[in-house]
Amino acid sequence: MRMSKLFTKTRKEAPKDEESKNAQLLIRAGYIHKEMAGVYDFLPLGYKALHKIISIIRDEMNAIGGVEMQMSALQNKSLWEATDRWDDEKVDVWFKTELQVGGELGLGFTHEEPFTAMMKQYISSYKDLPVLAYQFQRKFRNEVRAKSGIMRTREFIMKDLYSFASSQQEHEKIYEEVASSYTRIFDALGIGDVTYKTFASGGVFAKYSHEFQTVTEVGEDIIYIDDEKGLAINEEVFTDEVLEDLGVDKASLRKEKASEVGNIFSLGTRFSEPLVLYFSDESGNKKPVIMGSYGIGPARLLGVMVELFSDDKGIVLPKNVAPYDLQLLSLGKDEESKELYLALQDAGFDVLFDDRDEQAGAKLKDADLMGMPYRVVVSEKAQSAGGYELTERSSGERLILDRQELINYLKKAYEKV
Amino acid sequence: MRMSKLFTKTRKEAPKDEESKNAQLLIRAGYIHKEMAGVYDFLPLGYKALHKIISIIRDEMNAIGGVEMQMSALQNKSLWEATDRWDDEKVDVWFKTELQVGGELGLGFTHEEPFTAMMKQYISSYKDLPVLAYQFQRKFRNEVRAKSGIMRTREFIMKDLYSFASSQQEHEKIYEEVASSYTRIFDALGIGDVTYKTFASGGVFAKYSHEFQTVTEVGEDIIYIDDEKGLAINEEVFTDEVLEDLGVDKASLRKEKASEVGNIFSLGTRFSEPLVLYFSDESGNKKPVIMGSYGIGPARLLGVMVELFSDDKGIVLPKNVAPYDLQLLSLGKDEESKELYLALQDAGFDVLFDDRDEQAGAKLKDADLMGMPYRVVVSEKAQSAGGYELTERSSGERLILDRQELINYLKKAYEKV
Repeated sequence: MRMSKLFTKTRKEAPKDEESKNAQLLIRAGYIHKEMAGVYDFLPLGYKALHKIISIIRDEMNAIGGVEMQMSALQNKSLWEATDRWDDEKVDVWFKTELQVGGELGLGFTHEEPFTAMMKQYISSYKDLPVLAYQFQRKFRNEVRAKSGIMRTREFIMKDLYSFASSQQEHEKIYEEVASSYTRIFDALGIGDVTYKTFASGGVFAKYSHEFQTVTEVGEDIIYIDDEKGLAINEEVFTDEVLEDLGVDKASLRKEKASEVGNIFSLGTRFSEPLVLYFSDESGNKKPVIMGSYGIGPARLLGVMVELFSDDKGIVLPKNVAPYDLQLLSLGKDEESKELYLALQDAGFDVLFDDRDEQAGAKLKDADLMGMPYRVVVSEKAQSAGGYELTERSSGERLILDRQELINYLKKAYEKV
Repeated sequence: MRMSKLFTKTRKEAPKDEESKNAQLLIRAGYIHKEMAGVYDFLPLGYKALHKIISIIRDEMNAIGGVEMQMSALQNKSLWEATDRWDDEKVDVWFKTELQVGGELGLGFTHEEPFTAMMKQYISSYKDLPVLAYQFQRKFRNEVRAKSGIMRTREFIMKDLYSFASSQQEHEKIYEEVASSYTRIFDALGIGDVTYKTFASGGVFAKYSHEFQTVTEVGEDIIYIDDEKGLAINEEVFTDEVLEDLGVDKASLRKEKASEVGNIFSLGTRFSEPLVLYFSDESGNKKPVIMGSYGIGPARLLGVMVELFSDDKGIVLPKNVAPYDLQLLSLGKDEESKELYLALQDAGFDVLFDDRDEQAGAKLKDADLMGMPYRVVVSEKAQSAGGYELTERSSGERLILDRQELINYLKKAYEKV
């Protein structure tokens, strides 16, 4: 992509009402645009990064047998009345609207009800189970206070997986498989070492649910980490009873602020009973389906990653999430740069080419702010030194390489060899 | 994909309230689920088909220099007040909702306003133009009558491209490029020969807009086609004056029902003036940006395709839109089928494998209903005849092929050689 064709520009200052580092940097770098408080647009760079995260999550969902689909955002009141989640006294984040022809609708803040109701068409026997269905879908939450930039917004894409099982044992197997897939996702995104499977309140049907909490100063939750056991406990269930139950010693815990990047819930028959999703077991007895739900917010993940992977110059995204493999800067060497741009593309790289008519200083600053993993400079100075200047954004390490060396280096870095 | 893992099932009957052929077949084949009147969920098969259409559109938008991004669905009232499109008297399809913290919001039924307002951050000089930005985004329309199955719904994914130009001449060049890309899209989907670039009312800033209308009995529009000139005129502008203007002879026209599968609009300064999107020209004069907007609804396209490409047995989708390359049926030959399933996957095919414990008749019927381009049967009968039975869904042509012949045949069909 030539930057002369990319319409976004970097900004020196973020909007004054934007307090969080993630939104400040993402707005300044041209990744997102603030539509209003708690509502952001994803500009081309942000859209690409978000979809790389989505793609990593999708691969893991498919690997554990998840089948992708997509529900509507508009919600049928009657389904939510059946589970007693329509009333604003019971659920305080609904956005509601009305049909011109009459009748109230909701905007989905989650999708247990429609998934359960839809499955009545398809699940009738134990032979139909288990089922794992998931979607990447836009959720709407009427938050009283939208804060933390793109980490808590009123509209966002969510990956939500729902599992349907014939027994508690079958459910627990799925639950553990999803938990493992979540660990692989957070590892792949480079936040695995600061993300903890955290015990949280379980609701009616399970003693605990599990959250995946990433330690960060802007986190809204407080967790207590047991480093040795590699687990954590959410403040909301941090009682002596729970500590004893988990066999954790209070003295060995570390208190941290953290952000919930994923959650997994055992739902039991909370939804299948009121919505009458039953199946016949091997003896022909009718039983309610055992369900689970499992969420990850890709935009929150991008926000958390920017909080963790940035410095005073800008964003420092990892190779599998950065919108482009590298940023190529022409410093007064347009012909040579153009040639290298084509050669790098031919070699399979997704290149952001700064072909703008700008000062060297501005181009270098922008590259640091925008945070691609590598910067390649074509300049008189680099040419005299024997080639092109490659700088790794994360380490700052610089190398002078000729064209073939550069391509080989990048191929190795991107495991294209 | 093993059908034993795909949770959907075919249905003998569509819901009674579903009048349109497209929704009836798509529901019966397990592509979609009706959430409520005018609101459908995309089940795994429908989601895959929809995304193949999206992918074809995306490639063409990128090819003409479009940059992909994604706006929010929630809309800021003040932007729409500025263009006088907030009032329900002016726009009769709004869904509106309210923030808990106070204030009305809309759900986007289109996105001219937020695109125009956002571009103020990035467009200030003629050097920043032209810009082509697009999205695949969920639109909400509070239709009084939702009908025609998935062809007119209250919530749907739309591809909307917006162009920003410094002059009418620059705009017209883009307008023609988008028109050509639309023609390529409809050709690729196999509906090019019954889709006409149609003159429709232009609004304030252009004499005409253009719709792409596909001839189908369920179409909501009436168009008059000039076969020789390869154009059509929408009934809404079908006057003697327009006929004369276009140099068309009334006697040579053919009247047809048609469905609007795409539209392209010259917006002039309709949005840039009220929202103050101005740029400095080469002489430093401030001028409003000249805009265009260009829509395609992928779900409506899928609906139109099912209307056109189906028979009394079911759906007959083309190779580039069908969810799977072929459906493999084991008729009492589970081991041989499994082996062939793996071999076909190894050869690069996306296979729907009917490994269910069902009667031969049911499997054959389901394959016809679900409409993959090819059906491969593993049976005693086919084996005695020398291999596997391949049937092309569209022609009904049958061949007996051994494994290597089958793979070669499919590779040729899918241009994988």
